[in-house]
Amino acid sequence: MSNLLQSYVEGRWVSPGDEGTPLLSAVDGHEVARISSSGVDLAAMVDYARRVGGPALAALTFHERAALLKQLGMTLMAGKAEFYELSRHTGATDRDSAVDIDGGFGTVLSYSSKARRELPNDTICLDGDIEQLGKKGTFLGQHIYTSRRGVAVQINAFNFPVWGFLEKLAPAFIAGVPSIIKPASQTAYLTELVFRRIIESGILPEGSVQLLCGSARDLLDHLDGQDSVAFTGSADTAATLRAHPTVVSSGLRFTAEADSLNCSILGPDVSTSDPEFDLYVKQLVTEMTVKAGQKCTAIRRALVPENLVDDVIRAASERLAAITVGNPADESVRMGALAGIDQRDEVLKSIRALTKSATIVFGDPDSVEVVGADAVSGAFLSPILLHAADKTAPEPHDIEAFGPVSTIIGYSDAADAVALAARGKGSLVASLVTKDAELAGEIVRGLAPFHGRVLVLNSEDARESTGHGSPLPVLVHGGPGRAGGGEELGGIRGVLHHMQRTAVQGTPDVLTATGRRWVTGARRVQGETHPFRKDLGELRIGDTIVGGPRQVTRADIDHFAEFTGDTFYAHTDPEAAAANPLFGGIVAHGYLVVSLAAGLFVDPAPGPVLANFGVDNLRFLTPVKAEDSLTVTLTAKQITPRQSADYGEVRWDAVVTNQNDEPVAAYDVLTLVAKPAASA
Amino acid sequence: MSNLLQSYVEGRWVSPGDEGTPLLSAVDGHEVARISSSGVDLAAMVDYARRVGGPALAALTFHERAALLKQLGMTLMAGKAEFYELSRHTGATDRDSAVDIDGGFGTVLSYSSKARRELPNDTICLDGDIEQLGKKGTFLGQHIYTSRRGVAVQINAFNFPVWGFLEKLAPAFIAGVPSIIKPASQTAYLTELVFRRIIESGILPEGSVQLLCGSARDLLDHLDGQDSVAFTGSADTAATLRAHPTVVSSGLRFTAEADSLNCSILGPDVSTSDPEFDLYVKQLVTEMTVKAGQKCTAIRRALVPENLVDDVIRAASERLAAITVGNPADESVRMGALAGIDQRDEVLKSIRALTKSATIVFGDPDSVEVVGADAVSGAFLSPILLHAADKTAPEPHDIEAFGPVSTIIGYSDAADAVALAARGKGSLVASLVTKDAELAGEIVRGLAPFHGRVLVLNSEDARESTGHGSPLPVLVHGGPGRAGGGEELGGIRGVLHHMQRTAVQGTPDVLTATGRRWVTGARRVQGETHPFRKDLGELRIGDTIVGGPRQVTRADIDHFAEFTGDTFYAHTDPEAAAANPLFGGIVAHGYLVVSLAAGLFVDPAPGPVLANFGVDNLRFLTPVKAEDSLTVTLTAKQITPRQSADYGEVRWDAVVTNQNDEPVAAYDVLTLVAKPAASA
Repeated sequence: MSNLLQSYVEGRWVSPGDEGTPLLSAVDGHEVARISSSGVDLAAMVDYARRVGGPALAALTFHERAALLKQLGMTLMAGKAEFYELSRHTGATDRDSAVDIDGGFGTVLSYSSKARRELPNDTICLDGDIEQLGKKGTFLGQHIYTSRRGVAVQINAFNFPVWGFLEKLAPAFIAGVPSIIKPASQTAYLTELVFRRIIESGILPEGSVQLLCGSARDLLDHLDGQDSVAFTGSADTAATLRAHPTVVSSGLRFTAEADSLNCSILGPDVSTSDPEFDLYVKQLVTEMTVKAGQKCTAIRRALVPENLVDDVIRAASERLAAITVGNPADESVRMGALAGIDQRDEVLKSIRALTKSATIVFGDPDSVEVVGADAVSGAFLSPILLHAADKTAPEPHDIEAFGPVSTIIGYSDAADAVALAARGKGSLVASLVTKDAELAGEIVRGLAPFHGRVLVLNSEDARESTGHGSPLPVLVHGGPGRAGGGEELGGIRGVLHHMQRTAVQGTPDVLTATGRRWVTGARRVQGETHPFRKDLGELRIGDTIVGGPRQVTRADIDHFAEFTGDTFYAHTDPEAAAANPLFGGIVAHGYLVVSLAAGLFVDPAPGPVLANFGVDNLRFLTPVKAEDSLTVTLTAKQITPRQSADYGEVRWDAVVTNQNDEPVAAYDVLTLVAKPAASA
Repeated sequence: MSNLLQSYVEGRWVSPGDEGTPLLSAVDGHEVARISSSGVDLAAMVDYARRVGGPALAALTFHERAALLKQLGMTLMAGKAEFYELSRHTGATDRDSAVDIDGGFGTVLSYSSKARRELPNDTICLDGDIEQLGKKGTFLGQHIYTSRRGVAVQINAFNFPVWGFLEKLAPAFIAGVPSIIKPASQTAYLTELVFRRIIESGILPEGSVQLLCGSARDLLDHLDGQDSVAFTGSADTAATLRAHPTVVSSGLRFTAEADSLNCSILGPDVSTSDPEFDLYVKQLVTEMTVKAGQKCTAIRRALVPENLVDDVIRAASERLAAITVGNPADESVRMGALAGIDQRDEVLKSIRALTKSATIVFGDPDSVEVVGADAVSGAFLSPILLHAADKTAPEPHDIEAFGPVSTIIGYSDAADAVALAARGKGSLVASLVTKDAELAGEIVRGLAPFHGRVLVLNSEDARESTGHGSPLPVLVHGGPGRAGGGEELGGIRGVLHHMQRTAVQGTPDVLTATGRRWVTGARRVQGETHPFRKDLGELRIGDTIVGGPRQVTRADIDHFAEFTGDTFYAHTDPEAAAANPLFGGIVAHGYLVVSLAAGLFVDPAPGPVLANFGVDNLRFLTPVKAEDSLTVTLTAKQITPRQSADYGEVRWDAVVTNQNDEPVAAYDVLTLVAKPAASA
């Protein structure tokens, strides 16, 4: 078999100009594929992304892009069997593959869902509130996010050939930025297969994704300030890329997610008889053995109370002894192979370096019992547990053995554990196993500056916990310092990394036109038709209804107090109310004010407005006294049609004023409004 | 006079070990001061910041830090006269100094105010909402921001010796990160004087700020992944710093704000008779001449409709002719000197390069009439306006003359203007002068990906406009690509750049303890005392009152409709309500539900709860039908004592459930609650 991997460039699959380098099965060393990027026109790839992919994505709203991702995720999920099959050559068991394959497709679906729920149905989004920049309100500021007009170059690691590229692609796609995906060679055959199915599905706009199999060569030379490079891999390669002349001088965005010395802390409050002790040990062993420990989030340092070091070693060793190593195709196998012989040799080198200050307490680097495969031609390795008696020795905090390897380190107290964790100089993740929520809060606050993610495990959340090593699409992934200083995922946060934040200054009308969200002071349109009688096809931002005035009497206040039971003294006791520093006398209930306001703006008959599903940012600004007269002004603020429903959301700006034109209450009213009958 | 500038290191002023380099007055060339960092122990400086400054700041909450900044801003503002005096040596007129000095102190005060209003009275802050990570709600995610445990190294430019360091210092200080400030040598004497007054005031905690006058030498060698470097200056120096081994490999945060080819666009809708034409020309001339054009935000490219090029040249030249150049001490002078002879020579070199493709239409680079000073020893230069007949010639889009120099470029239509703006490869700011708000919205969306800030000027906001060239503390400053790809300021956004975002996973109790904000599912405490009877000293997060049940009758709904006037059919017309896809029958008003809930949780007698000032995130989750019984659970969610008031804010979690324990409404109730009498 000679499977020469192709790249997908400028809308077509291209084969390299040479025979390529062989990629060998991790399990038995046979050639799975060959790889090379020789002859691929990298400048053309970048140009195509900018010229074809960017505009194609720019023509779609966030919700339209999300709908495509949903379709893609479902399609890939339905055909996943062949990916599992091929994945075994990477050394992955089916459990490992689930993390990579289902995890990758799940990330695509999560982004689709987040984008539809949390972004507007538009091509730009707003960041934060209006800033008033002058006293009269004619000059305001609003931050917006727009899609960067470049290409997102994604350089992935070998350990997650599927999740690795999808977790980078999905946020860029939602952001409207075309991707060029460069998988790590060792496992690129799996990326290429999934990518082939993506292209065959025809779901994604042409030019929005391209694939580069083989060396990136001079790819970065062709980038500029609107582009980005996101790298996952070793700290050394990250540093090399970061020093590239284009990265140094073009102002492009570079982010790195590098392997790190993640730790897991057994809380000082836990004893061997607590369920948390078992949870700690179980999680440690899982993280050592899933993907044969080839996860940048795996636990490299197990920080445990000094007096429990022996107990943890004993319990972990017992569990490790039950881990069957071998051919992933064999059902009894719990841990597969490393990605290749080279990777295994690297790990062995790191283990030797670790043994300068740590002793191996479980496993033999030179010998492992292998099931269903041949220990010589496959990249197998026993799980290796070490113990560092000197907790401040540098090696366990500095040297990452990227395989099934962890080091146990004793600590004296909580502050010591936090200080030892920080010796990793920045990690992707730390976990803490403790029974004590208050203590957890304190320790988390200490760990957080050095970590991108902190997981607290106890017997309450153990069943639902997704585990120390699992980045989730809705949570940020990345870490400070040694972990690369980058950040990915985190729901919409990951999308915004591909967008440019810009402060826009102008009049209310200009900001309304820019952000498509009505801004106080902008033009209001009062027509003959009540805006509640307009469907989503007719309603326009700025459409306004003014209701009132209605006088609030003391009898209204008394009655409301009695009817609702809200007899707070400010509404009922003139003397006490007069003594209140804010009111100086009887005031109407805030809820009375908004209830009366609804009575003033509502249009009673059935129509396109289906429901008021909520209220946001209600503020009572001026006390309402008896005999005050209320007027309400309701203005269509933001209109969000749903892609897959016969209605959308309309946000209304509501302001209630008194007879002196002072605002007494301001809020947003949220409604569901029907689309036009034809389009519904 | 020999004023050898000192550095402020490890809590004391130190003089350099040599005689230093002379710094000459921009106006007459006399020696104002000498500068050197020879002998300053840079490693000790970094260590001191980490060891003394960091912990001192960590001991304060955001609000406490903000109170110190307020005090500092007021103190500096009160003594500003001497700064204005010294500032003249930099070539600055008093109007220029106002931008630098008052602008700097105003930024400090703005940060104080923003921090008190928008951050909790705590040392960490939350980012975004809770993410539910499992179905049962035992395992949740919450993003938090914590202070990075490093030092913020701030390398400033010569053109804003006061604002430049304060706009970097203020956000870092609020974030709890100590600063090491390195001013540009040319104008460091002014920075040193202001810094001296800061230290003399004794307001800031020891170690929280240090000053390094002179070369930064090997300062960056001593940094690591928790540190940051923020640079303002030329793109070349930015690239050099970005390639520094520590920056490349430690994962520290590096941000650059570099000079850029900012543009100002005269809208295609504007004719010479519109007031916007004059506004455009006036702003152009202002930006050319304020600070003698030495602002990284100044207008370098004036993009005007092709048919108005001559008119703009004529009108701008007329205004430029009225600009008096000379000694800033002379009251008739409108434009002072450049910062020094070297700077002027640099500008002259750039002008020569620009003339490859542009013609000078106003001013003479070799000759300028100077008032009250000597044109030979002072760094004076005439404003120079150029015109590039070939709009696509590279020079006007690539070469920045950092002085009173702009180039007029004609464009054909709005899309062409946006494309020409993008030729700057990323700028700090663009401005647009147009009468048409809709057109403005379109053009702003096109400009935004290439700009950190976009200002739209017209006759409505002209009086309040702060101008093309003015970064504001509440808006982001920085730009993509050539502008450095960095971001500063922007209110709290600028604070967060100094903090680490971390995803925390755990149980509701763990997240409550971590974030000090009650999380749904966390422990509630129902005591004998109604929580409304507890002042801020007694109230605890999790304190809960449960009220109800109260049955809602059809009569209640009818009555509420009649009383409030809210006769929406879903509350009044059984047949129509039954046809509504969401309700399927008469439902109670949402406002009725929350009004009744208030009646169930309120404690009527006067007590520490002073007022309900608002409601956030109210969502109606399940329709309430007649005969349903409502129960409300109100839980203290977040407690924010005010530093300078005898009360604080308490946010309560409110959930209304029906007889089946289904939530029908959920929201946050916002109240003001008194501090204990003794501490009030």
